[in-house]
Amino acid sequence: MLDTYHDFHQILTRYISLSDDEWNAYSSLLKAKSVRKKSILHFEGSICKEVYFIRKGLLRIYFMDKEGNEKTFHFAPENTFVTDYESLLKQIPAHYSIQALEDSELLIMPETMISYGYEHLRYGEQLGRLLAEEYFLIFSDKVRSIYTLTPIERYSLLKQMIPTIFQRVAQHYIASYLNISPVHLSRLKSQNP
Amino acid sequence: MLDTYHDFHQILTRYISLSDDEWNAYSSLLKAKSVRKKSILHFEGSICKEVYFIRKGLLRIYFMDKEGNEKTFHFAPENTFVTDYESLLKQIPAHYSIQALEDSELLIMPETMISYGYEHLRYGEQLGRLLAEEYFLIFSDKVRSIYTLTPIERYSLLKQMIPTIFQRVAQHYIASYLNISPVHLSRLKSQNP
Repeated sequence: MLDTYHDFHQILTRYISLSDDEWNAYSSLLKAKSVRKKSILHFEGSICKEVYFIRKGLLRIYFMDKEGNEKTFHFAPENTFVTDYESLLKQIPAHYSIQALEDSELLIMPETMISYGYEHLRYGEQLGRLLAEEYFLIFSDKVRSIYTLTPIERYSLLKQMIPTIFQRVAQHYIASYLNISPVHLSRLKSQNP
Repeated sequence: MLDTYHDFHQILTRYISLSDDEWNAYSSLLKAKSVRKKSILHFEGSICKEVYFIRKGLLRIYFMDKEGNEKTFHFAPENTFVTDYESLLKQIPAHYSIQALEDSELLIMPETMISYGYEHLRYGEQLGRLLAEEYFLIFSDKVRSIYTLTPIERYSLLKQMIPTIFQRVAQHYIASYLNISPVHLSRLKSQNP
């Protein structure tokens, strides 16, 4: 197996089992891509036609709120999948943009690979279900955190999910993710080292 | 086919096709239940072990925000599915409660039926994927509406989704769903009849 695909294969087999033949056919549809820090992979308003698997690096999903301020919605670290899932599912213009926050190594699953999986992998639909459930859980956590968590709870949760985030990402992105001011974030950090 | 199950069958076949044998085995696991207006079907803090299909009536999902105020998160009308999906998936205590806002006729899909579907229906995993995707889209719309829509846009969207909602539901539930005051809601209604 190509070393490039090793982690993707490992992660995939946490969801489903697949035969060598299935893996060979399926992974031949992957495309590797390197992107530089700050590159925008997907723009709000365009239709999303792929899912990114992050081999190395860190991506963020962001959007504009009703005051026209950029809000970071989600940070996606190594070994996770990221896409504008609503745009991908409905084939409508995306409400989110996706940007690399570090030089990143990606594997791109094009739409054709996704539908190939549903049609030809024995457990392709199960994979789709499990990923849809995970994506749901990200959004469900987000809704809950907006309504029910205090800034300090949101801060602790992020630290727990991506322990290295504070060393890797400019603080204003984190403040925007937590929906607090950068000054508030500094205070939280100094009180909760 | 039992008349009670007719609409459920119709809706199911919008997602997947299933043989008569599959339908008979699958639907035998359904349980019919009538509930009175204001009954609480599921309490925050308990683990959710079922999905409700609403034959007649209207349910709401709600939770307590960080100030201890009850917030209506979602209205579920006839012919839709409703559950505490996070609790069901992770088998953790639910963050939401589910209440009937009208006398309602439900079909209950117990957890055993859901896993039976994955294991024994030819397209069971596909059904799971499509429902997970739909549930994701509800939450995705919610996140977007919180951040990017104005109260009048949220109001119009709700009216479009459930045109009869304003006649069916006490106004304070709608105001809480829209995250505005009842006075603000009255103003929106008089300006947008």
